[in-house]
Amino acid sequence: MTVHPAHTRILKTDGTDDLAVPFTRVALTNGETFDRYCTEGPGSDPEVGLAPLRAGWIEGRGDVTPYDGRETQLLDNGRSAVRRGAARGEWRGERRRPLRGRNVTQMAYARAGIVTEEMRYVAVREGCDVELVRSEVAAGRAIIPANVNHPESEPMIIGRRFLVKVNANIGNSAVTSSIAEEVDKLTHAITWGADTVMDLSTGEDIHTTREWIIRNSPVPIGTVPIYQALEKVNGEADKLSWEVFRDTVIEQCEQGVDYMTIHAGVLLRYVPLTANRVTGIVSRGGSIMAGWCLAHHEENFLYTHFDELCEIFRQYDVSFSLGDGLRPGATADANDEAQLSELRTLAELTSRAWEHDVQVMVEGPGHVPLDLVEENVRLQQEWCHGAPFYTLGPLATDIAPGYDHITSAIGAATIAMHGTAMLCYVTPKEHLGLPNRDDVKTGVITYKLAAHAADIAKGHPGARDWDDALSKARFEFRWHDQFALSLDPVTAESFHDETLPAENAKTAHFCSMCGPKFCSMRISQDVRERFATDGMAQKSAEFIEMGASVYVEPSGV
Amino acid sequence: MTVHPAHTRILKTDGTDDLAVPFTRVALTNGETFDRYCTEGPGSDPEVGLAPLRAGWIEGRGDVTPYDGRETQLLDNGRSAVRRGAARGEWRGERRRPLRGRNVTQMAYARAGIVTEEMRYVAVREGCDVELVRSEVAAGRAIIPANVNHPESEPMIIGRRFLVKVNANIGNSAVTSSIAEEVDKLTHAITWGADTVMDLSTGEDIHTTREWIIRNSPVPIGTVPIYQALEKVNGEADKLSWEVFRDTVIEQCEQGVDYMTIHAGVLLRYVPLTANRVTGIVSRGGSIMAGWCLAHHEENFLYTHFDELCEIFRQYDVSFSLGDGLRPGATADANDEAQLSELRTLAELTSRAWEHDVQVMVEGPGHVPLDLVEENVRLQQEWCHGAPFYTLGPLATDIAPGYDHITSAIGAATIAMHGTAMLCYVTPKEHLGLPNRDDVKTGVITYKLAAHAADIAKGHPGARDWDDALSKARFEFRWHDQFALSLDPVTAESFHDETLPAENAKTAHFCSMCGPKFCSMRISQDVRERFATDGMAQKSAEFIEMGASVYVEPSGV
Repeated sequence: MTVHPAHTRILKTDGTDDLAVPFTRVALTNGETFDRYCTEGPGSDPEVGLAPLRAGWIEGRGDVTPYDGRETQLLDNGRSAVRRGAARGEWRGERRRPLRGRNVTQMAYARAGIVTEEMRYVAVREGCDVELVRSEVAAGRAIIPANVNHPESEPMIIGRRFLVKVNANIGNSAVTSSIAEEVDKLTHAITWGADTVMDLSTGEDIHTTREWIIRNSPVPIGTVPIYQALEKVNGEADKLSWEVFRDTVIEQCEQGVDYMTIHAGVLLRYVPLTANRVTGIVSRGGSIMAGWCLAHHEENFLYTHFDELCEIFRQYDVSFSLGDGLRPGATADANDEAQLSELRTLAELTSRAWEHDVQVMVEGPGHVPLDLVEENVRLQQEWCHGAPFYTLGPLATDIAPGYDHITSAIGAATIAMHGTAMLCYVTPKEHLGLPNRDDVKTGVITYKLAAHAADIAKGHPGARDWDDALSKARFEFRWHDQFALSLDPVTAESFHDETLPAENAKTAHFCSMCGPKFCSMRISQDVRERFATDGMAQKSAEFIEMGASVYVEPSGV
Repeated sequence: MTVHPAHTRILKTDGTDDLAVPFTRVALTNGETFDRYCTEGPGSDPEVGLAPLRAGWIEGRGDVTPYDGRETQLLDNGRSAVRRGAARGEWRGERRRPLRGRNVTQMAYARAGIVTEEMRYVAVREGCDVELVRSEVAAGRAIIPANVNHPESEPMIIGRRFLVKVNANIGNSAVTSSIAEEVDKLTHAITWGADTVMDLSTGEDIHTTREWIIRNSPVPIGTVPIYQALEKVNGEADKLSWEVFRDTVIEQCEQGVDYMTIHAGVLLRYVPLTANRVTGIVSRGGSIMAGWCLAHHEENFLYTHFDELCEIFRQYDVSFSLGDGLRPGATADANDEAQLSELRTLAELTSRAWEHDVQVMVEGPGHVPLDLVEENVRLQQEWCHGAPFYTLGPLATDIAPGYDHITSAIGAATIAMHGTAMLCYVTPKEHLGLPNRDDVKTGVITYKLAAHAADIAKGHPGARDWDDALSKARFEFRWHDQFALSLDPVTAESFHDETLPAENAKTAHFCSMCGPKFCSMRISQDVRERFATDGMAQKSAEFIEMGASVYVEPSGV
């Protein structure tokens, strides 16, 4: 489903006939076209799910085998499923037997010099050389989250040399939402440009909700498995164990989760460092693990069992998203000892994961005053040897609940400009409630513009072409093209139409800001007709001649 | 009118009995209070206007005299007033004879070592020493816009050593709006925190609309007089003359306009520099003057008559806002030869205004990629000898019409962090239409949070106290306090209530994000109870003891 009549789906290849990479083509009224990166996938009937685009590639490598997966249990869908004695809303589409291999990560292939179809696909999407993709993945500076059990996904890459990506969080809680609502949020988020989606459900039907989401998702799906594990032990953090956690991870690996947030850096000795903070520990996963550590007076089991986790992840190609459980939840707590201690541990874990060829990204804050933002990404890149940074905002101030998509977009654009590879969106509901469908859209659009602002600031090849195309349309009064090229054509057009709804106002050489009598743009066009030239030489000559014969010289400067 | 039941107006003094400076006091449920800078004034009946707070101060200095002002003409309210033979909606409140002096600027007083009531008032508002105020105004690094004919205004200061300020643009166009709507937008903008308001009307009833606005405004009012002058010559830029312009300026000085945007830097020889731009000249004032220069093949009359303007401004204490008529209207055009050439001329004009003791701020862009933002303020501060910078955004990308309050807040927070003194808001309607009442609020709130983010990043004394107060309320589940401390309590509370409307949810130790069973904040509070200490020494000792006896040591880092 495209969002504007001038948008169509086109497919590009790398010259071979086994790849077809979708782009959104915007047809302009002047006969030109503009092609945009497209995340929305081919679209699906939610009950059926998407076709397994990558199935042939995965099978073709000959290194995975189907097996009888872990049996789904009632508790996978929560305690009320157990009480009822039955799950509800179960997935009715195709069920494939799970696949696994010995070491099937994109990093393992990249290090072995193998160029996968996933890498080629990514190179077409990014408009870059495939060797850049392979070498960045091999070096750990980029990841392609691509669980072999999520063949529906269209490969994408997360790394500082590539376009800045945006993640949208969805998921229910004990208080609110249903499976259908979550699938709708997924589709909505992707339609508006989310590059990955995290299912952070903590309420009922967790297993089933995730199945529906993965089967319908053309983008990688991330989760925080400790949330589901906590539900399995009645919400009591001290009842958690490595065994329950491991079982949950296997369950999710087999379903096809592409990356998992693992809070293995919340070490027991760091917990007291948060005691005098303004807002303590605000990461849900971080506080679960802190609670467990304190209750048991033992080291975090995610840390002590980290190598076992790596062994599991490499069999499915699940990527780590190393959670920042001690991220600051207030600007007062930014870049403090707790946060930076954990980051050093995440750096250690990054290296350990890489020893197993497991792909890694590292999560970052949070709430950070603007003057401290750059240090976050600088330290993360230095300590974690360039592993992709994935940050939540950060929020540049705490004072604007209801507008935290904006307070965080300010920090997000800044941190991405300095090298953050993926931004986790924040919606207007942050701190106040779970996002609904509209909040998801607002969050995604806000973060797409922040990510794009960073792409431009980084001088990413071709990034500014989009701005230039839109600005040219604006300058030439091509209102329809201005809307069609907008990140959100629907909103742009409806705002314009509030004051000038008539169709002829969309070809008129004015708008409601100045009215018909006078228009800056029109005068500029006169200037262009008189002075525009193709070559700098001619312009310069003309300028000198004019300066010499016509102009009053200023008295100074 | 306050925006939340926990807000009240309090008055503070500097120990004398002739000053009473309003603050918004937020009463918290834990018995504490938090005082916030307040812009909204005492409130007025629009038909009556505000009391002339500064009248006694102005009179007391004994350097102004009332005189018979310029007679209002029908054309002051536009061509349709002329056609009708009558103005409409005329101001019915008190009419004072205009005042003027020989040299009554705050800069002149500051340079003479005189501490005015306005400076003392500002010092209380900013919580700083009055000598800082006087010396910054004397040096030209800050301005206190305070026309002697706008005695209703509550003095405020614009300068990089002070809190970052926000301006809201209002005003009608030929296509839309009425006097009542504009007065309502004024009040709404100020209620939500606008520090100054610009009346950019270009439609009907310009003179009368402005009279209503000034008489009801507790904040300084800015205008762009060339807009009204253009209306007086039937909207034809080439018909403009110094005489028409001068007459319009006098008209506005006598009404009480506090600062005026003057596009005196658009020199004839700079116009061709815009010819090959993506969007040419986008400043309305800039294109009017460019159009005039081209039509007459003469130097900009605002430049050639600049000293005469200074002579006028000093008689009323009108401040210059030196317009950036050649600002970039697309990221492609940022920091180009046209823009920087004009900035050098604005620097020259700054020095010339200072020779007349006239206060000056300098306007800045516009559309600027994030990596080029800092250079804008660095060059402006260097070239213009620290005169306050006043920027429109800048927008960090062109691709998001409908969301340009956000694309520009990103640039605004960044440029303010580097030293911009006042930010001109951008509303969601930018590029698409005139802002309505709701857009005005969204624009103001967005810019207040950007300005505050910059205050924190600059380490402005006390700025983060607000964040800390709100974050503490959040950590302690004081939901009512969290709302009351929000920049927009109405929106924060309504978002919370969408999922948990019951009153007891506002004292509950959870929210809809995690649900009642588990809450990160609660675990953090447990941590605090176990580990929080007052002194670092005790904390450190405890930490060492724990580290030695309990913890598993990591293998590396």
